[in-house]
Amino acid sequence: MPRIALGLSYRGGAYQGWQSQPGGKTVQDHLESALARFADEPIRTLCAGRTDAGVHAVNQVVHFDTTREREDFSWVRGTNRFLPMDVAVQWCVPVIDHFHARNSARARRYVYVLRVSAARPAIDHGLVGWTFRPLAIEPMREAAALLIGEHDFSAFRAAACQALSPVKHLREITITPLGSQGQYLRFEFEAVAFLHHMVRNLMGSLMAVGSGTREPGWIGEVLRSRDRSLAAPTFTPDGLYFLGPRYDAEHGLPTSSPAAEWLPGGV
Amino acid sequence: MPRIALGLSYRGGAYQGWQSQPGGKTVQDHLESALARFADEPIRTLCAGRTDAGVHAVNQVVHFDTTREREDFSWVRGTNRFLPMDVAVQWCVPVIDHFHARNSARARRYVYVLRVSAARPAIDHGLVGWTFRPLAIEPMREAAALLIGEHDFSAFRAAACQALSPVKHLREITITPLGSQGQYLRFEFEAVAFLHHMVRNLMGSLMAVGSGTREPGWIGEVLRSRDRSLAAPTFTPDGLYFLGPRYDAEHGLPTSSPAAEWLPGGV
Repeated sequence: MPRIALGLSYRGGAYQGWQSQPGGKTVQDHLESALARFADEPIRTLCAGRTDAGVHAVNQVVHFDTTREREDFSWVRGTNRFLPMDVAVQWCVPVIDHFHARNSARARRYVYVLRVSAARPAIDHGLVGWTFRPLAIEPMREAAALLIGEHDFSAFRAAACQALSPVKHLREITITPLGSQGQYLRFEFEAVAFLHHMVRNLMGSLMAVGSGTREPGWIGEVLRSRDRSLAAPTFTPDGLYFLGPRYDAEHGLPTSSPAAEWLPGGV
Repeated sequence: MPRIALGLSYRGGAYQGWQSQPGGKTVQDHLESALARFADEPIRTLCAGRTDAGVHAVNQVVHFDTTREREDFSWVRGTNRFLPMDVAVQWCVPVIDHFHARNSARARRYVYVLRVSAARPAIDHGLVGWTFRPLAIEPMREAAALLIGEHDFSAFRAAACQALSPVKHLREITITPLGSQGQYLRFEFEAVAFLHHMVRNLMGSLMAVGSGTREPGWIGEVLRSRDRSLAAPTFTPDGLYFLGPRYDAEHGLPTSSPAAEWLPGGV
């Protein structure tokens, strides 16, 4: 059966994450139901990165096999007709049989958009994290540098995590102030793969350093302890966006979607 | 009674616009109810620009009179406790008695954020307008130039408009492509005051020029005709943001709110 890959954008606030559940209210449930209605046959999907409840996706990549032949953009338009307004396929292309949305991914990227302001968000409610405590950027960058590389990230792993190993390779954390007075901070994370809640747990601890509650070196101690109870609490998913996976160029897949340009700070 | 001014941000999608209505579900209704609960006395408000149903506001300025004495930021925090999550006071300052949120305003600014892409929005659903037709920017800029100045804008005025005169002074329209491939366009409008639906009507006609349906000079003909039926249909409020009013510097009011930095293209 021919294999097809698609790029999906969604606002996560209304969904119990990506992964299909008996209740049928997850992003995967909605996508598979929309694909099945358009293709008029059951379709199973597999994604590049299973996002948690409330987490958004800019370019979630998904593959599926189908007997139906359609123009690439017909898949986009036809499937979107049956999806909720906060979920939409952005592109669709045929791929070679051994392409696998999860296993072919060389890396994954997440962005956390944090608003730092005395008053709470309104227009951007549910789309950014928020803290009223001013955060110092340099100490957070110092702390972030201690996390780069291959480490056992057990201290930043959710109890429910199903990954086979807590050892992950974190390649980069970039922290960028946005706005004329730094009212927003953009945290970008790249790793080969992430553990469950890993970015939200890292955010909580980086913010403890930025607010002066902890010294930058404390993050290194927490990492080495492999003890979840020593790290800061899991931060809200509101500002977390799965930017998407990286694949070898030979697959010819779009590396982003228009929504990336809409995020503060761009791609 | 002392007079106080505040800056309000809101996402307009859930509300029937600013203006109080018998149903009690407008932004003004929510704000007055929250202020009254915090101040424990009835409070009436007056705003700089009455936004339509579905229109967002970055820095809507409002004044009210009260007998209560509170710290400036207590008004912000205390009122926000009683407001829905998509409405929030951003700042609050005492003003001189003759300050008037509407009459003291020298100008008003609106931004329209438009997504131009084959696939529809998802993360940004309700927060941007959308068209799948590519738009040429230069013809839209030519057309926009014909609108600048003091004109009778009857052709771009809603039938329900309550303004005393259809003559308005449009100072500036700036059109800026955003994103590496121009996936978003930002239209910024500044006028002394606007008519009802004026920005949404101008958007519809500018897009007719950008898509090649009309020549730039057509906008001049429509303007001179003063005939609403000749202009393009009213465009959706989804991408429309009231950036806020301009006042003389002597009033010392904040000219924006953090949300402006979150909008694509910044302030």
